[in-house]
Amino acid sequence: MFDIYLDHNATTPLREEVSHEVMECMNNNYGNPSSIHGLGQKAKKKLTDSRETIAEFFNVKPSEIVFTSGGSESNNLALKGFNSVDGKNHIITSKIEHPSVIETCKYLESIGFSVTYLNVDSCGRVVPDELESAINNKTFLISLQHANNEIGTIQNLESIALIAHKYNLIFHVDAVQSIGKVPLNLRELNIDLLSASAHKINGPKGVGFLYINERLKKLTPLIHGGPQERKRRAGTINLPSIAGFAKAICLLKNSSINHDVLSVRNFFEETLLHNLSNVTINGDVKSRLHNTSSITFHGVDNEAVLISLDIKGICASAGSACSSGSIKHSPVLKAIGLSDEDSSATVRFSFGYKNSISDAKSVVHELVQIITHIRSIN
Amino acid sequence: MFDIYLDHNATTPLREEVSHEVMECMNNNYGNPSSIHGLGQKAKKKLTDSRETIAEFFNVKPSEIVFTSGGSESNNLALKGFNSVDGKNHIITSKIEHPSVIETCKYLESIGFSVTYLNVDSCGRVVPDELESAINNKTFLISLQHANNEIGTIQNLESIALIAHKYNLIFHVDAVQSIGKVPLNLRELNIDLLSASAHKINGPKGVGFLYINERLKKLTPLIHGGPQERKRRAGTINLPSIAGFAKAICLLKNSSINHDVLSVRNFFEETLLHNLSNVTINGDVKSRLHNTSSITFHGVDNEAVLISLDIKGICASAGSACSSGSIKHSPVLKAIGLSDEDSSATVRFSFGYKNSISDAKSVVHELVQIITHIRSIN
Repeated sequence: MFDIYLDHNATTPLREEVSHEVMECMNNNYGNPSSIHGLGQKAKKKLTDSRETIAEFFNVKPSEIVFTSGGSESNNLALKGFNSVDGKNHIITSKIEHPSVIETCKYLESIGFSVTYLNVDSCGRVVPDELESAINNKTFLISLQHANNEIGTIQNLESIALIAHKYNLIFHVDAVQSIGKVPLNLRELNIDLLSASAHKINGPKGVGFLYINERLKKLTPLIHGGPQERKRRAGTINLPSIAGFAKAICLLKNSSINHDVLSVRNFFEETLLHNLSNVTINGDVKSRLHNTSSITFHGVDNEAVLISLDIKGICASAGSACSSGSIKHSPVLKAIGLSDEDSSATVRFSFGYKNSISDAKSVVHELVQIITHIRSIN
Repeated sequence: MFDIYLDHNATTPLREEVSHEVMECMNNNYGNPSSIHGLGQKAKKKLTDSRETIAEFFNVKPSEIVFTSGGSESNNLALKGFNSVDGKNHIITSKIEHPSVIETCKYLESIGFSVTYLNVDSCGRVVPDELESAINNKTFLISLQHANNEIGTIQNLESIALIAHKYNLIFHVDAVQSIGKVPLNLRELNIDLLSASAHKINGPKGVGFLYINERLKKLTPLIHGGPQERKRRAGTINLPSIAGFAKAICLLKNSSINHDVLSVRNFFEETLLHNLSNVTINGDVKSRLHNTSSITFHGVDNEAVLISLDIKGICASAGSACSSGSIKHSPVLKAIGLSDEDSSATVRFSFGYKNSISDAKSVVHELVQIITHIRSIN
C-alpha cells in the first residue's frame, strides 16, 4: 500500500513552511488589524507585509490586491462587481471556464445580462478572431481563464489582451490554476482583474485575492460591511491564512519545483504511452500546464479506473473537483470535441512538488495492469 | 510591562485544542471533500462530522448549516439571498446593527429596497411595539442582532420572534457576538436565519455559518459556482477552519467559562466604580453579555485612554473593530442617547477565558491612574 497524490489541481498539501507560518500567526498574532492597540497594529503590519510580498511577486501595487475567501469568491466579485458600466450588459467568456465563472454568468443572464460562451478549438484554445467577432456595442467585460483546470491548456493572453484593449473592455483573467506555474506580467498585458487562490499553490484553504487594476474605480462589493480592504471586501481579516498565502508565494520565487514537476509529468506520459495503446493525451501539447495530464483510456470507464487506483492508494480525478459527483460528462472535454464515451474514459492526473519519478513509475505500473484488466473484461 | 487582552469582542485568541485541530487537519486531511478518492472522502467525513457537531449544538439539522467565510458574509447572504419574495421590498432592522448589516441595507436601498432602521431605548433595546408599527405590506424581512458588540445589550428575541411570525416575515438573527455566550433555542423561537462566526469564540478566523431554516426554499447565492454546501455557497471547502470551528463549539459545551468571565467582568466594574467617580456603564445592565463592559469616563478623551492603556500592555477598544479608524462617533452610542462628547469618552472592555481577577485588578489600577491624570490636566 502506497499513497501517491495526483490531484493537485483539486487542492494541494501545505508546504511545511506555510503551515508553520499559519500556526505562528494563529497563536502569536491573533489581533484584529482594525484594532488600534499594539496587538492590532502588530497584525496590521503582518497584513501589510503579506500584501506587499504578493503585490511584488505579481509586479502590481499592494493597494490593487483585495483579499477574498478564495478563487470562487474572486471570480464572483470580478463578474458581479463591475457590472454597471454605462448601461452595457454583455459579457464574453468561454465554454471551458471554471463553474464559479459559468454559474455566475448564468445567474447574470437570469437578471438581464447577456453572455457569449465562446467555443474553443480541439486543444482548448479560444480563437482570437471568434472572440473579436463576439464583441458588440453592449460588451463591457471579457472573462477568460489563464490555464484550464482539467486539461491544462494555457490561453494566449497576449492576443486576447490586445483585443480587450482595442475595444476598451474590462479584461478579467481567472488565474487560479496558473499562478506560480505560468509567468504572467499583469502590467505588460494590462490585465484589469485577476483571480487567485492559495490552496492551489501549497497554501492554506479559504484565502485568495482579486487583483483590481487601479484604473477601475467603481466596484460594488460582494460583501458589504466594515472598511476592510479599502471598502472593497468587508469582514475581519483572515490574517493567518493571508500570511500563509504570502509564504506560499515566497516559496515560488527562485524555485525549481516547476522544472522538477514537469520532468515527472513528462516521464509519466512517455512511459504510459510506451506501455499502453489506445490512449490519448488531451489539451494543448504545445502550451499546457507542466503539472497536468488529462488522459483518455479509450473504451474504459473512468470510474472503474479511479476506484482501482484509489484501492492502490493513488489519488486522481475525473475532472474538476468542483464538478465531480454532480456532472457525469465534463463540459470542458465536450468543448474540445470528446464524445460522451471518451469523456467517460478520461482521467486527470495533476502533479505536485512531492511527486517523484519513482511515483510516476508506480502509477504507470498500476495503470497498465488496471486498464489491461478492464479491457480484457469488456 | 504586562499584556492583558480585553478586546475579545473584536477577535479572540485560539484555544490550544482548536489550533491543534486546525493544524492536524491542514497537515493530514488536506483533501478536497468534493474529490471521490480516499483522501477526498476522508475530508468529506470530517466535514460531515464538523457540521453535525455544530448543528447538534444549535439543535438544528446539519443540512440547515451553510458554511461561509465569516459573520460579514453570513449577514450579507441573509440579507441579499432572500430578497425576491413576492415583489416585497421592505426590510426592518435597527440603528445599532453591525456594519455588515447596516452597509448591506444601505446598498439594498440604493437598488430599490426600503429599509426601516429602528430606534432603540437608552439601554439599547428594540421596542417590540415600534417594531410592529414599522411593518407594512411590503415587509418581508426582520434582521436584528442577538447581542450588541459594543454595549453588550441582549435583545428580547422571544417577543420579536412572535411578531415576525404573526406577520409571516423572515426573521434573521445576527448572533455573531452572542453564540456560546447566550443560550438560544433556534427551534423554539422558530428563527429563519442566523449568522455566526468562529473567531469570536476562540475559533479560527475566516469561517462562519449561516443557519438557513429548511422552510426557506429559494436562496440566491452570494458566491455562485460549484455544488458545495448544496449549491448555496460555492468554493473549495475550508476544512481546517471548519474543523476548528466545530472544536471551538465543542469546548463551549459544559464549560464554566461564561461563569468565570462574568465574575471577572463584574469584579472589574465594581472595583472601577468604587475607585473612580463620574463613570457610567452603558447597555442594559439587566440583560447584557457577561463579557462586555462599555464604560464612559466623562470628560476624558477615549483615544488618550486607549493609548495610555496600550503603553501598559492593555488592549481595549473604542468601539467595534470594524468601525475603528473610520468613524469617530459610534452610531451605537449615539442611538442609546450619548452625546458626541460622552461617545468620545467611552471605552469598550471585552473579557475572555484567559482573563483573571488579577488582570482586572491591574487594569483598574492603571485606569484609575490614567483617568485621574488626564482629568487633572484638563
